[in-house]
Amino acid sequence: MFHTERIKKLAGVLRDLELEAIFAGPSTDLEYLADLKLFDDERPKGLMISSEGGCFALVPMLYGEEMKNALGESASYKIWADHEGFHKAFAEGCGALGVGRGAIAINDGVRAVDLIEMKSAVDAKYVNGAYTLSPLRRVKDDAELGHMRRAGAIADEVMGGIAKFLKPGMKEREVRDRLVELFDEHGGEGLSFSPIVASGPGGSMPHYQGDSRELRLGDFVVIDMGCRYKGYCSDMTRTFCMGEATDEMKKVYAIVLEAQIAGEAAVTRGKTGQDIDRAARKIINDAGYGEYFLNRLGHGVGIAIHENPYIIEGNNVHLEPGNVFSVEPGIYLPGKFGVRIENLVAVRPDGTAEPLNKFTRDLTVIK
Amino acid sequence: MFHTERIKKLAGVLRDLELEAIFAGPSTDLEYLADLKLFDDERPKGLMISSEGGCFALVPMLYGEEMKNALGESASYKIWADHEGFHKAFAEGCGALGVGRGAIAINDGVRAVDLIEMKSAVDAKYVNGAYTLSPLRRVKDDAELGHMRRAGAIADEVMGGIAKFLKPGMKEREVRDRLVELFDEHGGEGLSFSPIVASGPGGSMPHYQGDSRELRLGDFVVIDMGCRYKGYCSDMTRTFCMGEATDEMKKVYAIVLEAQIAGEAAVTRGKTGQDIDRAARKIINDAGYGEYFLNRLGHGVGIAIHENPYIIEGNNVHLEPGNVFSVEPGIYLPGKFGVRIENLVAVRPDGTAEPLNKFTRDLTVIK
Repeated sequence: MFHTERIKKLAGVLRDLELEAIFAGPSTDLEYLADLKLFDDERPKGLMISSEGGCFALVPMLYGEEMKNALGESASYKIWADHEGFHKAFAEGCGALGVGRGAIAINDGVRAVDLIEMKSAVDAKYVNGAYTLSPLRRVKDDAELGHMRRAGAIADEVMGGIAKFLKPGMKEREVRDRLVELFDEHGGEGLSFSPIVASGPGGSMPHYQGDSRELRLGDFVVIDMGCRYKGYCSDMTRTFCMGEATDEMKKVYAIVLEAQIAGEAAVTRGKTGQDIDRAARKIINDAGYGEYFLNRLGHGVGIAIHENPYIIEGNNVHLEPGNVFSVEPGIYLPGKFGVRIENLVAVRPDGTAEPLNKFTRDLTVIK
Repeated sequence: MFHTERIKKLAGVLRDLELEAIFAGPSTDLEYLADLKLFDDERPKGLMISSEGGCFALVPMLYGEEMKNALGESASYKIWADHEGFHKAFAEGCGALGVGRGAIAINDGVRAVDLIEMKSAVDAKYVNGAYTLSPLRRVKDDAELGHMRRAGAIADEVMGGIAKFLKPGMKEREVRDRLVELFDEHGGEGLSFSPIVASGPGGSMPHYQGDSRELRLGDFVVIDMGCRYKGYCSDMTRTFCMGEATDEMKKVYAIVLEAQIAGEAAVTRGKTGQDIDRAARKIINDAGYGEYFLNRLGHGVGIAIHENPYIIEGNNVHLEPGNVFSVEPGIYLPGKFGVRIENLVAVRPDGTAEPLNKFTRDLTVIK
């Protein structure tokens, strides 16, 4: 079903940007605009929405029934069969909608190889539309904030559950599997991403993908996870210690914790993503670990797990009430260990940060 | 680790196609070339491989350690930090490799929005490289065929297990969850895609994504599933009947079965994908159900679940020994039911089809 108010606002954004239209492939944009979750295969598909609010759906024939179920009679459908390819349907759709002479934004659900083919079908100017919907999406309304608080509370409960579950000798994958079960038990509606369980030296890779190492006494274990609730994501990281931490581990943990607290505290009226990044990064730089903090301080979260606003050097857009983003400093020591502490925060009407996660940030020792 | 023989062959393909290089983002191409499984986030990353066999890796800083663990000292790394963006690293990598004046293929692991940015960093001609590696990948060697036979045998065992598990009153999602367990129990190494369990009217949508309907007496239930083994996919569909089928259901099932058998039988020396599609489609057309067969007859399978050769009208490339593809006719009656029967087959040295699935294709009635 189309969210007609959102489509209307989007048309206004397109006019402001002097864009004729946006083409959105399978993506959170389509979930936001029309509750559309499309099967992600190699067949190009999606919605073209014009600056006049008009629209056509590009539909591979085998998805015709479900697309019509989802969008109803109000949409115009350009259906193509496997053996035809999508070029003709795409060109006809653009022609009927009156787009193709100016600039068309392409969102982040479209593959580069398909853009190359679109260009051969309709020789418009295609521009980067990864964040064209951000003016709509980055400020959450009360209903959205409610869903995000609930998603965050579920993550808190799951983090509490996993803290009781951890034991030396377990494999990382057992911990991951248990996280998935815990999300189900606590009312999560799917995962926002596959949980990261990074023990010992694996913790120095922020997006560690291994799962076969055994947790040992003396390890830090970085656990980064989240679920969806009514489509909205939670995202939370804690670093646990299996048994006693060494002095170096305690020192690094304390620096990251101080940076995380400083990042949240820096969220006040009129600040930018860059300001918040700098406030936290300064703590880590001053402690001499700057080169081991490998990424931006945070990213916006909503239906997408990574969206605007990014909390990063160079982002000079002022934060607004209703923004939701992560504050996740880390120190990553290759071959040794990593520490990351991450909360999501929502910007309150007064400009300060409301943490959406309450699980303790103090070092939790697993005995 | 680089597969140096494959990289060398790829360089030859690039020279044949008069391409300077290919840039491959997170994709099965990277698994094939270098056992690389990259975390799939919004940060552009991948390998640029030139027609001289040279290479650089475009690496977001937070993936630096794992990329170096995977590729070792032999690769050249262009690492970029979040706040810098990837443009400069990409341009420097291209400069050092000596590419950017001619045509660069882009594979299917790159997002359109990133291609737009690449074009602004290096103004080369970018061409569709979705299938540039097909000359290497579409003919499987003995080791690959061995893995695919095993993946197929596991799918057979799982299909047998699920046939015993089905009962009226179960939700589709219970069936799907049990399929996942069965693949684990039988030695599957992950899924090749999220299983489709489409009951009753849901079966008329080939890639039905629902999971909440209860199985009822009188339903057809389409089950489409597969696992990976040593990276290679299985893919198999059977349609079960909950209790007695009506005459219409029996008739439609018999047509689809005849078409599936005809498709496999048509695989003989010198045939093309189009020939096989036509052989099966003729049965369904002649029976008067042509408009309800919504998709191509089949697709190649390997590390990717959809790859060359496609079994489709318009594909006039001759099949070769070592090709592996699906033969999956279906009849999809909106609002009523769907029937699909799918085997993978490998082309034997004599040109005929070796089915990789042995589970009965006859109508199985669940009592």
